[in-house]
Amino acid sequence: MTAIRWRSVLFAPANQPALVAKLSRSAPDVVVLDLEDAVPAPNKGEARAAAIDAIVTLGAPEGAPLVAVRVNSVRTSWFDDDVSAVVAAGVGAIVVPKLESIDDVRRLHAAVTAAGATTTRAPGATPLLVAGIETARGVADARTYLADGFAACYFGAEDYVADMGGERTSSNDEVRFARGYVALAARVCGVAALDIVTADIADAERFAREATEARALGYAGKLCIHPRQVALARDAFTPTEQQVDRARRVLAAWAEANARGVGAIAFEGQLIDEPMATRARAVLSSID
Amino acid sequence: MTAIRWRSVLFAPANQPALVAKLSRSAPDVVVLDLEDAVPAPNKGEARAAAIDAIVTLGAPEGAPLVAVRVNSVRTSWFDDDVSAVVAAGVGAIVVPKLESIDDVRRLHAAVTAAGATTTRAPGATPLLVAGIETARGVADARTYLADGFAACYFGAEDYVADMGGERTSSNDEVRFARGYVALAARVCGVAALDIVTADIADAERFAREATEARALGYAGKLCIHPRQVALARDAFTPTEQQVDRARRVLAAWAEANARGVGAIAFEGQLIDEPMATRARAVLSSID
Amino acid sequence: MTAIRWRSVLFAPANQPALVAKLSRSAPDVVVLDLEDAVPAPNKGEARAAAIDAIVTLGAPEGAPLVAVRVNSVRTSWFDDDVSAVVAAGVGAIVVPKLESIDDVRRLHAAVTAAGATTTRAPGATPLLVAGIETARGVADARTYLADGFAACYFGAEDYVADMGGERTSSNDEVRFARGYVALAARVCGVAALDIVTADIADAERFAREATEARALGYAGKLCIHPRQVALARDAFTPTEQQVDRARRVLAAWAEANARGVGAIAFEGQLIDEPMATRARAVLSSID
Repeated sequence: MTAIRWRSVLFAPANQPALVAKLSRSAPDVVVLDLEDAVPAPNKGEARAAAIDAIVTLGAPEGAPLVAVRVNSVRTSWFDDDVSAVVAAGVGAIVVPKLESIDDVRRLHAAVTAAGATTTRAPGATPLLVAGIETARGVADARTYLADGFAACYFGAEDYVADMGGERTSSNDEVRFARGYVALAARVCGVAALDIVTADIADAERFAREATEARALGYAGKLCIHPRQVALARDAFTPTEQQVDRARRVLAAWAEANARGVGAIAFEGQLIDEPMATRARAVLSSID
Repeated sequence: MTAIRWRSVLFAPANQPALVAKLSRSAPDVVVLDLEDAVPAPNKGEARAAAIDAIVTLGAPEGAPLVAVRVNSVRTSWFDDDVSAVVAAGVGAIVVPKLESIDDVRRLHAAVTAAGATTTRAPGATPLLVAGIETARGVADARTYLADGFAACYFGAEDYVADMGGERTSSNDEVRFARGYVALAARVCGVAALDIVTADIADAERFAREATEARALGYAGKLCIHPRQVALARDAFTPTEQQVDRARRVLAAWAEANARGVGAIAFEGQLIDEPMATRARAVLSSID
Repeated sequence: MTAIRWRSVLFAPANQPALVAKLSRSAPDVVVLDLEDAVPAPNKGEARAAAIDAIVTLGAPEGAPLVAVRVNSVRTSWFDDDVSAVVAAGVGAIVVPKLESIDDVRRLHAAVTAAGATTTRAPGATPLLVAGIETARGVADARTYLADGFAACYFGAEDYVADMGGERTSSNDEVRFARGYVALAARVCGVAALDIVTADIADAERFAREATEARALGYAGKLCIHPRQVALARDAFTPTEQQVDRARRVLAAWAEANARGVGAIAFEGQLIDEPMATRARAVLSSID
């Protein structure tokens, strides 16, 4: 089994067939059929039915992306039916928005277990779980619930700022604290972290800048809401040839120094020691 | 009863009658008679007596601001007498500086209760409580004590940096972590957050920039130390006509889209979904 | 006994005699003989032996810096022997890298106690302990273990970012959260905080800028990896004549105002009250 990559995670409203049909075309690592914020209340049932069909269609081809569904929050009346339907359809991952507490996570596990018990899916086919961290409490308490069975999490800046009663700006200053903390909490809990949506879909420069920042912070990928953003995310979270080349040279110089009993050397003006070697190895392993 | 607004919170030393007399003139949302840092030790008694008079005078007119007193810290010998005197005088709010722990908060509640028992004030007239968060420990432990009966809190950058052994700079980089965390802790605890003092009273541009940043972070208002700062704070924490207009258009477009079964639409180049609608509603409700 | 200063803390690999010999020449406050990242595995024993010699040589002269050794992590096989050897040699401080938990700290105390029991060193000569905070978990849990017997700690950005799976950049944006939090945790725990290494040893401007930022955040000094960085650190963490002069004038103006019953005055366009006076006193005490 290949390890899951989370570089580009493309969302589409599950009840918009034209957008769903195009989801795989940009070759994202993960596609997400959204039942939550992008679907108005009266259309939740219709969206769920469309998601069930799309799970099969999108996941069928060789080399298809991981197919995920964002269900409605555990605190809504749609939640149990959403989980039950998508587990039965064999969804690859369930994205759960606005998680806030260990109680929320317990409800999630209970729903997944209940759903699995009524399906004929093979053992081990349990979907991956992705936590949506996008409220004040969800951020503040992330460490208390994130270690409990999640493969990944995302930081949702729009909902977070709405919940804080703040204002979204292009500087992202208002989410700097939370964006830094979510990366840390995710790492401590052993969970891949996915960066914020760039709502201005025409601004490729902003998307690329945010993706570069996110990668530096330790994020593994970025949420995308338009196919054009997928290639930008893939590029930002994949090392460049130059980075790969530099990593190889760092490791060569370092191995050579080690053989001489030296563990810290100057390399192109920088001190190279164990942590730099660790990062160089991470660069090379990420392109395998 | 109208909801309290915290956009502009103007301080004056209680023992300086000329400044106290001018407190209401700039029409701040809240006026604070300071018994703490702005009053030297030998003048504490005189300041307290002046505050008692001013509580009545300042609070009397129709449409008067909320009248608050900043008492001395719970760890001083003045604290109990300060609280007792201002509660008896019918103060609207008590601002308590340098809070650090749940023990401090217990002492505060004990003092307020003791003061209330010896007065003839009507039930329900208990003053609002405002927590001063302005030490390393006070910031680090804010969540442990802030949920316990406070209506608002402020982040005091000058005292915080002094306690950290740091340096204040015009970049505010040295308080970025604490300023972000206090906003989050306040929101999780359901408490309005008030932003730092701008000590350079001649620098209106800095005040306005800080207020704009603070509003984006979720702060409800800003501490003012000069009447000229009040209008700047009011402006920054009140939506502009343009913002109100945009919020109305966002909600109209979103309602129209919802009626068509669409929950995420492009609006002036941005994706609009539930969190943007929530923020638009917040803008409109803040001008009621 | 003079209080320890931590402004400039210069590292050298213990197994590189040419670098060790030059350690004191730049007059750092603290010198650190590194047994960890700068020494490859096969050379650990040789480095330890060299460190034992250097502890005596470097610490002998009148006015010598505090002599420290960075041992290998508590989770390595070298740890117990490292501690035992350097305690027996009378080391002034032990720097312990990659601390993460109270369990790690217990192992550290156990090793120091065990080492002390087999030596003839006088009571009270227990070495100071310096905690290396340089992993995700080490940062996130700093408050849980840092109060337990440490004199100082450092934040290691290179290892931290490697552990986060992020990228180091010259902006330091990727370590802003952790750098802010470590300063706060250190202050709450009563521990001096030491700022990150500047790996680009030729970039004096970057070193100076980082040191100035660090001082504003409340850091007491900065790790140095080249003798040239020592004077830059000393300068940044020592008040300038101008700062000392201003502090004196602030305190004079404030005392004069206090005598008139005034506790908050305008001074060169800024409001001066108790926290500013506290900082002015700190400036003066740091030059004693």
